[in-house]
Amino acid sequence: MSKEITQPDGTCHVVITGGAGFLGVRLARSLLTQGQLSLAGAAPANIARITLVDRAAPPDDVMADPRVTALTGDLNSLLEQKEAPALVVTGQTAIVFHLAAAVSGECEVDFDLGMRSNFAATLALLEACRALQTKPIVVFASSLAVFGDTAAQPLPAVIEDNTLPTPQSSYGIQKFIGEQLVADYTRKGFVQGRNVRLMTVSVRPGRPNGAASSFLSGMLREPLAGVRAVCPVAPDTPVALSSPARTVQGLILAAEASEQAWGPRTGLNLPALTTTPGEMAAALERVAGPAATALIDWTPDPAISNIVKTWPARIHSVRARGLGLLPEESFEDIIREYIRETPSAVVLGNRSQ
Amino acid sequence: MSKEITQPDGTCHVVITGGAGFLGVRLARSLLTQGQLSLAGAAPANIARITLVDRAAPPDDVMADPRVTALTGDLNSLLEQKEAPALVVTGQTAIVFHLAAAVSGECEVDFDLGMRSNFAATLALLEACRALQTKPIVVFASSLAVFGDTAAQPLPAVIEDNTLPTPQSSYGIQKFIGEQLVADYTRKGFVQGRNVRLMTVSVRPGRPNGAASSFLSGMLREPLAGVRAVCPVAPDTPVALSSPARTVQGLILAAEASEQAWGPRTGLNLPALTTTPGEMAAALERVAGPAATALIDWTPDPAISNIVKTWPARIHSVRARGLGLLPEESFEDIIREYIRETPSAVVLGNRSQ
Repeated sequence: MSKEITQPDGTCHVVITGGAGFLGVRLARSLLTQGQLSLAGAAPANIARITLVDRAAPPDDVMADPRVTALTGDLNSLLEQKEAPALVVTGQTAIVFHLAAAVSGECEVDFDLGMRSNFAATLALLEACRALQTKPIVVFASSLAVFGDTAAQPLPAVIEDNTLPTPQSSYGIQKFIGEQLVADYTRKGFVQGRNVRLMTVSVRPGRPNGAASSFLSGMLREPLAGVRAVCPVAPDTPVALSSPARTVQGLILAAEASEQAWGPRTGLNLPALTTTPGEMAAALERVAGPAATALIDWTPDPAISNIVKTWPARIHSVRARGLGLLPEESFEDIIREYIRETPSAVVLGNRSQ
Repeated sequence: MSKEITQPDGTCHVVITGGAGFLGVRLARSLLTQGQLSLAGAAPANIARITLVDRAAPPDDVMADPRVTALTGDLNSLLEQKEAPALVVTGQTAIVFHLAAAVSGECEVDFDLGMRSNFAATLALLEACRALQTKPIVVFASSLAVFGDTAAQPLPAVIEDNTLPTPQSSYGIQKFIGEQLVADYTRKGFVQGRNVRLMTVSVRPGRPNGAASSFLSGMLREPLAGVRAVCPVAPDTPVALSSPARTVQGLILAAEASEQAWGPRTGLNLPALTTTPGEMAAALERVAGPAATALIDWTPDPAISNIVKTWPARIHSVRARGLGLLPEESFEDIIREYIRETPSAVVLGNRSQ
């Protein structure tokens, strides 16, 4: 199987859509570091090339690696190209990590944008992979958003592997349709698809954004940079989170698991740690001292609070556990990881020692 | 709500895709007979026009009704038309029953045909309805096939309303994707969508076809016409069936239920009677005598048997029950109904009196 998708010299070529995004870059760095991939359970193949497909340019440190190339442009437009060098996938492509997507808020505001960026692009990518006739691996980044929210439709208290998704957003619908397409293209033998449902990621680096979940990173990230931050929900609101590292680990495991170990074509729920903003703040205080937590303003915002309360907060990922993917044991570990990786956070983190 | 989709004189226009097919014609006849529709719970509106969209021409008796018009052609091609008189939906369209589909076997043989006929046509129809800006009702005929089969992925012993569909055929995937599209176009206020999952229908009139389920009609229909028939599975194999009348009743109820009564946008499993070929033959004997059952050859076919054994056979449709939709109480009722409606069956049916 891997014979067809690896190069004659035994190396492999990797494509990451959304490759200049937060997770795409992080995935690229991890792959460059490990240097090899066991494609769907095959013997490890050296990674000879990683193509980062994105509208934005990847950061310089990643581009400095001779194995990395960037393909810059709109994914839908690129997928309409029929000739090199603008091809997203080629006969040399062993695996595609399909992370590119318009985000939830955008898709609610602009329905057609979401249908184009999340749905049509995924279908076009699968068609491009099918046309190769090499059965490349496609790791599809789906989302916890497929489960919708409890305000619109009751959800079980705990999300199990076989819980029925009832998406309540265009983003969730488009991700769930993507899963179905990946499943059937896999069943038909056009690709080797792996549907992975990503959890809410914290701590995300960078700046606050308009997402209702933004505070779940901001209430840690901002204080660790000496900046005030707001927690707009009650301290005891349960939330399900995963670290960036654990999320990338899940994507790589999806690529490396054998077909048998991976199991059904249904989306796999990555593990998530169930915690609360109160526990997160306590963890922050243990790691970075009261000076950090003093920067959190507990200012309830009913609008955000009402949204967050409807999100599934307990994910029971038996399938992921069977593959060796476990949730973090404590939010403290996640904060320590963030501090290790973030120069601007170290200052305050050290201050509390 | 219905104000916008009914005509100024209070009447309504109905579109049925697949309108020349077995269920489409039967639905048209029922609508012509009842003469009115309570659109999504509104006061009954007289049906002024029924447009039957199909590649084939509808039967003469239906076309003889002055309320019926036929729009003949390929649905995808018709949906590309931008001008009357070839429009599938117009500003006058109050409701579309979307029954048109390539069948399961065709979609397995020709993947692109299924994607075009089942997936792309459904998306184009929804887009055409959205463009009207009148929020027409769309009753989407999904299928029990969304649940896949137990051979490929374990299913619970009983299919509940919230059982996770894991389609194991392109047809099932395309129907399930159609449900997701209808759900989101409904949530966004583009249409008033109703997802209805049809069960295996028996007794279907007409001739045997290549479907693995063909015998479930043939083993009744053929003997009732004095013709030998084969039952290729063991007599005690459980199967879930619904009559043509009950199926059409479900489609009409989906059109007439108020939004509140209908409930979630998730596909609604129509009720099904769980029976076995043994029980079906016993019912046939009670209705039409031993001369009829003597025409059944019990010749096991391992290939068909292995397929049928993987189908969900127990459907627990609590939601349908709440709407007043119940499964038939006995297969005997289904046979009697078939005989009443089928001139060629009456002969043998009488013979046994």
